[in-house]
Amino acid sequence: MQTSNRQVVYARQPVGTVTTSCFEVRESTMPEPQEGQVLIANRYLSLDPYMRMRMIGPQGADELGQVMTGRVVGTVAASRHPNFREGDSVFTMGGWEQYSINPGEEVRHIDICNIGWEPYLGVLGFTGLTAWAGLKHYGAMAEGESLFVSAASGAVGSVVGQIAKIHGLSVAGCAGSDDKVSYLTGELGFDHAFNYKTVDHLPTAVAAACPTGVDINFENVGGQIFDAVFKNMNHGGRLLICGGISQYNLKTPDPAVPNLLDFITKQLTMRGFSVRNHADEIGPYIEMAKDWFMNGQLKGRETITNGIEHAPEAFLGLFSGSNFGKQIVKVDE
Amino acid sequence: MQTSNRQVVYARQPVGTVTTSCFEVRESTMPEPQEGQVLIANRYLSLDPYMRMRMIGPQGADELGQVMTGRVVGTVAASRHPNFREGDSVFTMGGWEQYSINPGEEVRHIDICNIGWEPYLGVLGFTGLTAWAGLKHYGAMAEGESLFVSAASGAVGSVVGQIAKIHGLSVAGCAGSDDKVSYLTGELGFDHAFNYKTVDHLPTAVAAACPTGVDINFENVGGQIFDAVFKNMNHGGRLLICGGISQYNLKTPDPAVPNLLDFITKQLTMRGFSVRNHADEIGPYIEMAKDWFMNGQLKGRETITNGIEHAPEAFLGLFSGSNFGKQIVKVDE
Repeated sequence: MQTSNRQVVYARQPVGTVTTSCFEVRESTMPEPQEGQVLIANRYLSLDPYMRMRMIGPQGADELGQVMTGRVVGTVAASRHPNFREGDSVFTMGGWEQYSINPGEEVRHIDICNIGWEPYLGVLGFTGLTAWAGLKHYGAMAEGESLFVSAASGAVGSVVGQIAKIHGLSVAGCAGSDDKVSYLTGELGFDHAFNYKTVDHLPTAVAAACPTGVDINFENVGGQIFDAVFKNMNHGGRLLICGGISQYNLKTPDPAVPNLLDFITKQLTMRGFSVRNHADEIGPYIEMAKDWFMNGQLKGRETITNGIEHAPEAFLGLFSGSNFGKQIVKVDE
Repeated sequence: MQTSNRQVVYARQPVGTVTTSCFEVRESTMPEPQEGQVLIANRYLSLDPYMRMRMIGPQGADELGQVMTGRVVGTVAASRHPNFREGDSVFTMGGWEQYSINPGEEVRHIDICNIGWEPYLGVLGFTGLTAWAGLKHYGAMAEGESLFVSAASGAVGSVVGQIAKIHGLSVAGCAGSDDKVSYLTGELGFDHAFNYKTVDHLPTAVAAACPTGVDINFENVGGQIFDAVFKNMNHGGRLLICGGISQYNLKTPDPAVPNLLDFITKQLTMRGFSVRNHADEIGPYIEMAKDWFMNGQLKGRETITNGIEHAPEAFLGLFSGSNFGKQIVKVDE
């Protein structure tokens, strides 16, 4: 077994756009599990836009000099916890590194034979749970209603749309390329989709995609796209604020809600949420979503980058839209 | 019995600030109740800031040439409904006029002997219900939490603060004169209050008034005051959007939410609502609030203007803050 552990460290706080110079790759010594802990050889790492938010101090900020954290799937390399044995396939919160240490209580067995590795970082992982928890707890979905999701071909957005379709909603979304738009309406069964980069007028495009207005907005982008959807909200509409990828790299954020009175006249509800508050629902979610996944109702698509040392470039790609679906890193090439 | 009916009509749509020229006083003929209807001699009329919103077309707009509508208390002048007799004391949705016609189903008997007239337009009327319905349905009030209310000495704001105190919350608010501030902390038992016109820096003033941050914001004003409270919201905070009196007369509204990401990091919920959706709760509300009123836990204060023909000036006064507490009009001097 190797004795070093390649890691990506949070090195410099970004000012505006995050760059690779905000990270450093280092070789650390292999950690050893203490009583109750498990050492995991990470196979795949999840990269998510929310990680950029942790670099906007001080609230929830990452600490400089620390390994970046993220969801991982991998193999137990050594265990001092009774529930785990060497070779077990697991997923957990780990780091941007080859090996991570975790208390056994935070590690979960996964079924690789039938499912494979990647879905546990996407449609069957916290990405999928983010979509589900948002819709379930704050969406008040009703059959026949209309949902709009931004960054719709992204990891969370694509699950949002598919789960809404399963529940009988009319679903529309936007993405940043014609290929992605075709994927939404072709592969994923969206009712309408458009390329936000090529339409003339965003509010008109949303109105055309949602001819009965928008009952639920699942927001991943913010800025002009949020504004365009906001203008199309129906009376009693719900705005679920999951992310704002257009905003993370701005020094001065765009104003989010132009008019307070719209909230009253339309009786809107706007709710910011984080999957962290629903972490204990991951087990039941996987059980439920596995059926959808096995029968083809819930599909995932991944962009895989090879080598943990390339995680920073892959992370930057999330903000330019170079990924298609879930961005993950294969830790060892 | 007189044969004419003095009315105030919505005559011209305001552009920016509402003026008396938006209204016209006219003498109409006395209406006659049809089968199932009641003719009410209006005694007091409620004036409310939300009426300005109905003049911002097209959504929910009043129609030009129609009598302005509003809550009234009065005496049954003629009845063709089995539940009402001439002389009964009632309250209902009526008009800015001496006499109103209503279907009996929309009219409610009131207890004048023990309570008097005015409270049914204030603390025991739809004004009080607005405060209660907002807090009950969207506030998720918990003992020990902190609430901030803007326009705190106003009709709704003063009830919000008192009901929150009854439920064990720490309560702060702002108003537009030192007299009003003294009334809040002296008469109504607010923990903290300040004059928003004389403080140096609104966010600092809110922070000083709410040393543990704000869990619930009950918003009646909008603009800079909303912004200042928003900056002081606690994690998991609720923003109840009831009104935005600073915005109604603006041609271009102020941006309401400066930063979408705050919604995610703080997991905020913002909810616009209207008492119209809770009209069926008025009976139970009066039953409950009557006890608070009788034992002095819920106090009201009114500014009374004499003569229905002076309703327009009194209405304009709501936006300059010339009223103190609930603004009502005594229909006949």
